[in-house]
Amino acid sequence: MEHLLIKPDPLNPRLTRSVSGIDHNGEAQEIRVVEERPLTIYLNSQEIVTAMTIGDYPEYLAVGFLRNQGMLLASDVITRVDFDEEVETVVVRTERKTDYEEKLKKKTRTSGCAVGTVFGDMMEGLDAVQLPATRLKTSWLYSLAHQINTMPSLYLTAGAIHGSVLCHEDVPLVYMEDVGRHNAVDKIAGWMMLEGETAGDKIMYTTGRLTSEMVIKTALMGIPTLASRSGFTAWGVEIARQVGLTLIGRMRGKRFICLSGEERLEWDADVNAVQDEPRKSVRKGKTK
Amino acid sequence: MEHLLIKPDPLNPRLTRSVSGIDHNGEAQEIRVVEERPLTIYLNSQEIVTAMTIGDYPEYLAVGFLRNQGMLLASDVITRVDFDEEVETVVVRTERKTDYEEKLKKKTRTSGCAVGTVFGDMMEGLDAVQLPATRLKTSWLYSLAHQINTMPSLYLTAGAIHGSVLCHEDVPLVYMEDVGRHNAVDKIAGWMMLEGETAGDKIMYTTGRLTSEMVIKTALMGIPTLASRSGFTAWGVEIARQVGLTLIGRMRGKRFICLSGEERLEWDADVNAVQDEPRKSVRKGKTK
Repeated sequence: MEHLLIKPDPLNPRLTRSVSGIDHNGEAQEIRVVEERPLTIYLNSQEIVTAMTIGDYPEYLAVGFLRNQGMLLASDVITRVDFDEEVETVVVRTERKTDYEEKLKKKTRTSGCAVGTVFGDMMEGLDAVQLPATRLKTSWLYSLAHQINTMPSLYLTAGAIHGSVLCHEDVPLVYMEDVGRHNAVDKIAGWMMLEGETAGDKIMYTTGRLTSEMVIKTALMGIPTLASRSGFTAWGVEIARQVGLTLIGRMRGKRFICLSGEERLEWDADVNAVQDEPRKSVRKGKTK
Repeated sequence: MEHLLIKPDPLNPRLTRSVSGIDHNGEAQEIRVVEERPLTIYLNSQEIVTAMTIGDYPEYLAVGFLRNQGMLLASDVITRVDFDEEVETVVVRTERKTDYEEKLKKKTRTSGCAVGTVFGDMMEGLDAVQLPATRLKTSWLYSLAHQINTMPSLYLTAGAIHGSVLCHEDVPLVYMEDVGRHNAVDKIAGWMMLEGETAGDKIMYTTGRLTSEMVIKTALMGIPTLASRSGFTAWGVEIARQVGLTLIGRMRGKRFICLSGEERLEWDADVNAVQDEPRKSVRKGKTK
């Protein structure tokens, strides 16, 4: 039977910190906030980027980042991944000799919540993507949303964090959180590459918006379904339709909107039996 | 009398698009979603970056991005800013000869919601920052939040967008929206530079999280107060305390938390008279 392999770790003292301040009544308050630390990623002898991350799973983050940037190929043999906590670096070593000096010169700022950059051509490799027309039961969507929203998480403990969850049917398999949404997705990509996991039967659930970057990343990972609590951008929808990705957004309680791949939906859920979200698990991303 | 100089433009047909899909009942729906388009920024003859942006105010975005990256100095004389809509480029020209080849090699992914990059050293210039100990009345906070949350905006029309607002006391002056939070802030920085606006008496309000990047940007812009509906990261709090920035987060209805600069608050608001937020204006960022 399938079960959750990686789940949020809200009790890990390395991931949150207690800070003191005052509230609106002028009273002293102590709250937990998430950590944010640099991690410099190397591919063989080349420094690629410094990521601001919460700091868990640095090996998955490095491998997934490099894979999603097209710097690690599906065929690459990874010989070692070394994380050095003290100097905050992770080095991914491959059999193949790599040199991305040219690619590093071309930068695209993506449209997430921070200065965003994708190296090289954002659309690179997208023409070759053939996503399988995997069926999607609406009962899975409701079950996944309920499980993910009510599970103990850094989000429920400290807020200010994004989550991405790799799912199979109605089972959440890998639930990653990070201060950067891209990092959460990259950690999943790294886990998939290192574990040799298949993509064509999976669902990606994210708490973030369905922007072009998120759609491209999911498609390049070979995952045919992307679902979110948040809203859409026009270009995200356009690319999803081009590559045949099922795109579900604005998932709240019984509501959702499907803007691509609607012919793959199986309407097996009784919508009237779906409960509204419990207030304490109402997430950010409360977009219309 | 002061008044709003730039406000959201939800009726501008260039900024949103109508797309069709189906909802949770299987019924056809037509919704508006925000646009997301590339804009390549040049400084003199050098290509610096391609930003994914909603596309309004390209000149402010380019100037503000370059200023916030330290590539335009406060002393720089801008001779021309040329936007070419067809090829989606904007070129900023200065009297001073510029060359940032070396700086472009050092990249830091920030912790926002997309792959984030800051060129050069993220903390560069922060040691020299001296923020004035500007007073902050709690009545201004409540008034600003109410005005900003109820004003017609792309957010209320289409969702999936961030807002940043430059304010003076209880007056919102410049309200920018963008698919990238960093873009909204950069557009404000560009407006301030081109209009020669002072910073020491201003308040920056953002819908996004108070991460290190957001705190550093606000401090480097010389703005002594940063307020948000969303939550904090530990490093964001640490830097705010180092540079003497007043940091207010988790602003919802009558609630807020102040984690830096609390001695500058003037408690002139009657908390019990502050109303809860109307439901239709409840924004994403509903973090705890």
